Amino acid sequence: MTLDNISCQKSAGGWHKRYRHRSEVLGCDMVFAVYLPPQAEQGGKLPVLYWLSGLTCTDENFMQKAGAHKLAAELGLIIVAPDTSPRGADVPGDPDGAWDFGLGAGFYLNATQQPWAQHYRMHDYVVDELPALVEAHFPASDRRAISGHSMGGHGALVCALRNPGRYSSVSAFSPISNPMDCPWGQKAFSRFLGEERSRWREWDASVLLSEAKAPLALLVDQGDRDDFLENQLKPEALVQAAKAAGHDLELRMQPGYDHSYYFIASFIDDHLRYHAKALV
Amino acid sequence: MTLDNISCQKSAGGWHKRYRHRSEVLGCDMVFAVYLPPQAEQGGKLPVLYWLSGLTCTDENFMQKAGAHKLAAELGLIIVAPDTSPRGADVPGDPDGAWDFGLGAGFYLNATQQPWAQHYRMHDYVVDELPALVEAHFPASDRRAISGHSMGGHGALVCALRNPGRYSSVSAFSPISNPMDCPWGQKAFSRFLGEERSRWREWDASVLLSEAKAPLALLVDQGDRDDFLENQLKPEALVQAAKAAGHDLELRMQPGYDHSYYFIASFIDDHLRYHAKALV
Repeated sequence: MTLDNISCQKSAGGWHKRYRHRSEVLGCDMVFAVYLPPQAEQGGKLPVLYWLSGLTCTDENFMQKAGAHKLAAELGLIIVAPDTSPRGADVPGDPDGAWDFGLGAGFYLNATQQPWAQHYRMHDYVVDELPALVEAHFPASDRRAISGHSMGGHGALVCALRNPGRYSSVSAFSPISNPMDCPWGQKAFSRFLGEERSRWREWDASVLLSEAKAPLALLVDQGDRDDFLENQLKPEALVQAAKAAGHDLELRMQPGYDHSYYFIASFIDDHLRYHAKALV
Repeated sequence: MTLDNISCQKSAGGWHKRYRHRSEVLGCDMVFAVYLPPQAEQGGKLPVLYWLSGLTCTDENFMQKAGAHKLAAELGLIIVAPDTSPRGADVPGDPDGAWDFGLGAGFYLNATQQPWAQHYRMHDYVVDELPALVEAHFPASDRRAISGHSMGGHGALVCALRNPGRYSSVSAFSPISNPMDCPWGQKAFSRFLGEERSRWREWDASVLLSEAKAPLALLVDQGDRDDFLENQLKPEALVQAAKAAGHDLELRMQPGYDHSYYFIASFIDDHLRYHAKALV
């Protein structure tokens, strides 16, 4: 598989690079971004944090707005940011042109329903195809962590919960914690997975956490002035699931913060240190 | 004068707020952003760094991409980011719709030629009207620093050089150092100021520096892989002027860096500390 480099910018002593490649899993061309800390030029292999962004985002939002490069450079952490859905002229989007489903809103699952099933396989892309590419083309080890925001927080939790042992650590900002029970999740799941709700359970972080056998540690940050907190994000479902199944969830309600990247930038360093501790 | 708050987001323990107000100087409504560190709620007055952005920017670019809030919160520094030109339906832009003149490209000067002279008075807005507003409505002292990027680096240098004593310190990233001698500057100056080149000298940082009597310290960062370095930015003119007139210019050529906000984010902390040292 080949990667086409489309940009290359020095940042905090390392390099922010963007690549385009053909995704076999998604059946389309994809763009992702990678931050390579200065240690990437020293010969060894470095651990990788995969960052999953939220609704409407691309690979660019986190790299431009999170302010994560400085500490990643200090910690020797590679960061990889994929796009949030398959893309391209033949990839169907929301039938009504809405922003909360389809293009920019792939929900990091494998769709089973038409017309989505052909391209919308973001889970397999994020968990398998992209790491294989990253580990083949960059000085990246197989030590992986995963995190994300909102839809991407849901994605990070679900990827970690469905694939025990694949990630050394998982965290999330403002995740859609119980998509079966919120409008964003119900819209996406009913289309991608069909109306049979029992099929939704394997893509819902709170359900998966309540059933997970291996003990799991989770760090979740949530702003208490987040406009989506009550109707869409519902972290209390995650808290109940963790409690019932005996998992170690640290949910930090951050007073005054909203759903924006200003919130992420305020606490990303805590998450980077959390992952670095598990990865090295 | 009244300020209308249009957004308010917690960031790094402080607040990022945006305001709309009527500018008497510019004859239009303007939006600016302010970062208030946590110390702003403690009763005293804090020093202010004015940040001037480059071509095509608004108040948002620096706040979203520079990663400056964390250290500003630590240092107790207010940051104010104005827009880069007058705005509105009756404000003329580039006749050909180009991005390097007019709307988003006011060059921080006072225009003398029609049809620009009515609205394009960004120097007076940045140096006088905006600080008066800021100092009246926020816990801001009259201790001021100024910095900026590209067109805004030119603006920061020129504002400081034309107003000795008004700023405790000045710095710039990738400034248009000698606008009389580059295409961006010549296009803007010939329209805003007319074809008589002798009138341009009072808005050219290198000319002003060569003639400045009071000793001035300047910190300038410049990436050596900046696509605009050779034809537009020309920092060597600034170096020569500083040398000839005996000013203390520290020009740091940063290897590998380009003209983007990744460059600014990589070194903004050095500038914040530089200004904080002069301000407190």
